Amino acid sequence: MKEKKLSEFMGVRESIRVLDATLRDGGLVNNFYFTDEFVKALYETNIKAGVDYMELGYKASKEIFSTDEFGTWKFCDDEDILRVIGENSEKKIKLAVMADVGRCDYKTDIEDRANSPVDLIRVATYVHQMPGAIDIIEDAKKKGYEVSCNIMAISTAQESDVKVALEMLGNSSVDVIYIVDSFGALYPEQIARIADLYLEYGEKYNKQIGMHAHNNQQLAFANTLEACGDGVDFLDGTYNGMGRGAGNCSIENLIGCLKNPKYSIYPVIKFIEKYMIPLRESGVVWGYDMQYLLTGILNQHPRTAISYTKDNRKDLVKYYDELTQQE
Amino acid sequence: MKEKKLSEFMGVRESIRVLDATLRDGGLVNNFYFTDEFVKALYETNIKAGVDYMELGYKASKEIFSTDEFGTWKFCDDEDILRVIGENSEKKIKLAVMADVGRCDYKTDIEDRANSPVDLIRVATYVHQMPGAIDIIEDAKKKGYEVSCNIMAISTAQESDVKVALEMLGNSSVDVIYIVDSFGALYPEQIARIADLYLEYGEKYNKQIGMHAHNNQQLAFANTLEACGDGVDFLDGTYNGMGRGAGNCSIENLIGCLKNPKYSIYPVIKFIEKYMIPLRESGVVWGYDMQYLLTGILNQHPRTAISYTKDNRKDLVKYYDELTQQE
Repeated sequence: MKEKKLSEFMGVRESIRVLDATLRDGGLVNNFYFTDEFVKALYETNIKAGVDYMELGYKASKEIFSTDEFGTWKFCDDEDILRVIGENSEKKIKLAVMADVGRCDYKTDIEDRANSPVDLIRVATYVHQMPGAIDIIEDAKKKGYEVSCNIMAISTAQESDVKVALEMLGNSSVDVIYIVDSFGALYPEQIARIADLYLEYGEKYNKQIGMHAHNNQQLAFANTLEACGDGVDFLDGTYNGMGRGAGNCSIENLIGCLKNPKYSIYPVIKFIEKYMIPLRESGVVWGYDMQYLLTGILNQHPRTAISYTKDNRKDLVKYYDELTQQE
Repeated sequence: MKEKKLSEFMGVRESIRVLDATLRDGGLVNNFYFTDEFVKALYETNIKAGVDYMELGYKASKEIFSTDEFGTWKFCDDEDILRVIGENSEKKIKLAVMADVGRCDYKTDIEDRANSPVDLIRVATYVHQMPGAIDIIEDAKKKGYEVSCNIMAISTAQESDVKVALEMLGNSSVDVIYIVDSFGALYPEQIARIADLYLEYGEKYNKQIGMHAHNNQQLAFANTLEACGDGVDFLDGTYNGMGRGAGNCSIENLIGCLKNPKYSIYPVIKFIEKYMIPLRESGVVWGYDMQYLLTGILNQHPRTAISYTKDNRKDLVKYYDELTQQE
């Protein structure tokens, strides 16, 4: 890490933004069935904790996904946001939703910002879908939103392709470009190099850079710290690391570490005691475990590890054989 | 991290040594009651996995600790080692035991190396006990052992005192000096600075440096990687991170990351499936959890978190109030 960045990080760096992605990445493990009480309490907790952005879920296409199979926050209709959270008119926290390239009817489903409680549209894309991502970005920008873009699964993408994607995003209206370690496969020194690359484009095109980590190798928090120390400002976390598979950077780790007094861990602890521990005890499963470590080490999509978990398998060696068999 | 060290780390760095501390740090959570079968299988696994050192437990004083209350590996009598593991005469792995300053009758209980299967004496000390540590170090060295020294709890020690301790160790016969984050309180950038300090003394006095991490903030593996990238060569891990409180750096994370082909994760996975998962299911408890995060953030000894865990408490907010109350 760079000495200069470090001291900024240990003190107060005003440019840092913490984003709570619990409902969105966490929603992937309970099909977005959060109670209204949970969502409202999370919103109030985030405000008290000084969290800067709260991601509510996906703007998923109802042509593709059935409202019978998924909860409210898979779709994030404005009326649901208004019903549960309210107008959010004081803007003590900004609200975000995610639009997945190819799985979002953004032209019809995303209103003008003036008519919506949402502030930030987060566009999620694979590197080979960039033109689709750019369409959503420009549409959202025209409608008045802040816009970020998550280039997913870069640990399996060609670095030269990632550079082309960064160039395209540089020339787009996007505000924030996220480093996303979808497979939890990257080590801190790789994050350092990737952060340097993203920050180079960020400086050239005046874009901010973000970090979204997964915990397959117990490195989600460490990789987020590494990126932060390197100069990355947008940091994603989730309560108790709730998220797909091994989960994400735990927001309590992050809030407990950041030195800006605007961040407070006390409301975070209260929320975890009252809502997250019972949620886990109700049978919702996520978090670091051996099967996720193995897909992380092998730089594979965690889907097989998620199945392994669902099936309550204990045959770790056989599973590893499956992951590494010659095809 | 430093670019030069990084590339060494991504390739093969012959000077790296991995030490398995499962029986010793893990023994703290089950009072050292491991079955002979477990210990024998662990020994064979470590050899197959390429682990360089295996720590068997403590050389604890039988004047202070009762053999009725603790299992075999609290005491590591040579005859028990010989009975369970054998002569270890091929030296495919080196065997280590820990001697705690003030709690070890080292003069009588540690034989000459020529008559013992043990290779390495690990001296554990607080910074204020250095003369006691030096006595054990010189005694062990005279008896023919490799000797290392763990200065514990440095996150609460005065840095100037740590420097004096390093100077004393520099002038002693010790071979390896360990950075020990007993409270799991340190962040990677602090480890980087501490590693620089230890390595400075290491270079001056021709001592090697080691890293022993705890996982209170989910940083045990990350801090071990950070130290390794900085040039620290002796790296401690335990199977499934088994160790006091939040546990240690998981050896499967470490072995899965190191690129030297002498390290192999396959036997590690086998051992975890056959022995570690059943051990955990039998009711032995360790590993990252909120209560350990809180003592880690607050740089406190984990003993209150261990009690919280034992008592099955769920009142996290009240516990945090207890940790932070004004005295």
